[in-house]
Amino acid sequence: MKAELVNPFISSTISVFDTMVGLEVKKGDLYIKSDERLYYDISGAIGVVGDFIGFVSISFPEDLALEVTSKFLGEPLTELNNDAGDAVGELINMIAGSTKKHFSDKARRFNISVPNVIVGKGHTIQRPANLICIGVKFHLNNKIFVLEVALKEKTQ
Amino acid sequence: MKAELVNPFISSTISVFDTMVGLEVKKGDLYIKSDERLYYDISGAIGVVGDFIGFVSISFPEDLALEVTSKFLGEPLTELNNDAGDAVGELINMIAGSTKKHFSDKARRFNISVPNVIVGKGHTIQRPANLICIGVKFHLNNKIFVLEVALKEKTQ
Repeated sequence: MKAELVNPFISSTISVFDTMVGLEVKKGDLYIKSDERLYYDISGAIGVVGDFIGFVSISFPEDLALEVTSKFLGEPLTELNNDAGDAVGELINMIAGSTKKHFSDKARRFNISVPNVIVGKGHTIQRPANLICIGVKFHLNNKIFVLEVALKEKTQ
Repeated sequence: MKAELVNPFISSTISVFDTMVGLEVKKGDLYIKSDERLYYDISGAIGVVGDFIGFVSISFPEDLALEVTSKFLGEPLTELNNDAGDAVGELINMIAGSTKKHFSDKARRFNISVPNVIVGKGHTIQRPANLICIGVKFHLNNKIFVLEVALKEKTQ
């Protein structure tokens, strides 16, 4: 997986947060996710199939997820309920969906499935060992959320 | 989503456990997952794109996951480490992969992404509200794991 592959997802994340949530997020460090586990409280993940196959996910600590989903929904949330889950699912859906245009402009097939949302204090997401996953830390209100992109080129 | 859509996944699950793990699992109740949350400790999920889009996942409580992955890998595991995660990812990959033949026999497009594995005590998986999810309880050694299928027919 080439690191450049992550760039359109970064642009989409910044753009979706700006236009749909009304929050300015700042791109921080990139990391290659190996055996190291990162722990989060709510994640949205979406499958990708096409010239690339894999997963894109977004993960938040609880406090930041509540801030973001409250802003996105326009109502204060105090717990990671179904509304918060739907909002996180919609966010990763919009991020992956708006990235799709980048690939179709280059005549690359890029189809997304539907989001699933994982809610669980301190969960971690693991990918197959042969799938390189590149993560991006985003800074927002002195907290961090991550976007992780794990894609490989389809061989067949 | 038609309930019949779940049947090939049930057959694949029984077959994969029989041939690849060496364990006989028994199909139990089906359920429609609505707002009710079910809590598990390790899950493998895989995206589906084609004539149907959605997600298929398998979820275990920790003790049963350790039994299954130990048997699958042929070495005793005592914690939900990366090896256990890889095994659970491989299981859902094989279940979805062997179900693919059922759809291609019917000339339906059915492509899968790669598995992601969620590890986290008592996590729950949520899908978009408009996506019906049918779950199947499987019995194994007096414990229960679930397979959940959330697919919708592609409209475009």
